[in-house]
Amino acid sequence: MMKALPLSKVYQLLEPGPVVLLTTAQRGRTNVMTMSWHMMVEFEPPQVACVVSNANFSFGALRRTGECVIAIPARKLAEKVVAVGNCSGRDVDKFAEFGLTTAPAARVKPPLLPACFANLECKVIDRRCVNTYNLFILEVLKAWIDPAQKNPKTIHHRGFGSFVVDGPTIKLKSRMR
Amino acid sequence: MMKALPLSKVYQLLEPGPVVLLTTAQRGRTNVMTMSWHMMVEFEPPQVACVVSNANFSFGALRRTGECVIAIPARKLAEKVVAVGNCSGRDVDKFAEFGLTTAPAARVKPPLLPACFANLECKVIDRRCVNTYNLFILEVLKAWIDPAQKNPKTIHHRGFGSFVVDGPTIKLKSRMR
Repeated sequence: MMKALPLSKVYQLLEPGPVVLLTTAQRGRTNVMTMSWHMMVEFEPPQVACVVSNANFSFGALRRTGECVIAIPARKLAEKVVAVGNCSGRDVDKFAEFGLTTAPAARVKPPLLPACFANLECKVIDRRCVNTYNLFILEVLKAWIDPAQKNPKTIHHRGFGSFVVDGPTIKLKSRMR
Repeated sequence: MMKALPLSKVYQLLEPGPVVLLTTAQRGRTNVMTMSWHMMVEFEPPQVACVVSNANFSFGALRRTGECVIAIPARKLAEKVVAVGNCSGRDVDKFAEFGLTTAPAARVKPPLLPACFANLECKVIDRRCVNTYNLFILEVLKAWIDPAQKNPKTIHHRGFGSFVVDGPTIKLKSRMR
């Protein structure tokens, strides 16, 4: 069961730069893609920038509907994450193909992915960089966390199917939020 | 000694989401800050988006000069990276204070940090999101790598001085670049 996560904590999930999944929905047709080009833009309300190539099937759905879910998978989902990235929603129902269960979101039409340890319901708030850079600015409306997944290790893409998995965590005396 | 890195490989350094250092120079005054909010925007020529808060001393220099260097530190520099993030260039010469040696860049005025395993010389190419989001779009003009630092482990910020260090690398069959 997923629990609501305070929006003030969202940046702690995305700032480390994990590979994420992005779901969309357009006229009842849902899709999911793999994404690594994203960053935090503001703490609270959390704003996120991401690049979705206009070569991706998801691009049109995101641009037209202005809604998506960013889901963060742990290491155990890495094989599915790569499989999702290796095909297009134009050709395949990826949820069925890769056994990705979905659940309804609270604030947006694209589905949550309960197998992921975190899910962020997002709406597009700024499109001025879409035409030039395929860059969307999102606001996170609602965040969910799966408390059953303790200390999930995320994966980070280094190109060509090489991923670095989270190692140890270190604590240093920081005044940085 | 640093070696030139082909620009086509730059995304492999930033896509995993490491904490980086950002140097600037304005009227002969150089500065360095710690940054985690960045992402790739284009492969080649490599374009990078980053958020530099207008509360940071570096913001004015970056906006006015349109130049910076993004330097990527490995784990062994983590304590210095945090120290750099805990003070402002308004008050301190951070290079002297933390023993950060600099070297001249080839294409921009801000200095390289040879202790970092990679250095990216950048110019601002788009400012349309600066006023609203403090978001700069950069192009990488020249990239450097230190071949003596083999398989450097980077650090990723989780908030409040907690950092995850790179763990093992896994290879999966991917068609993703």
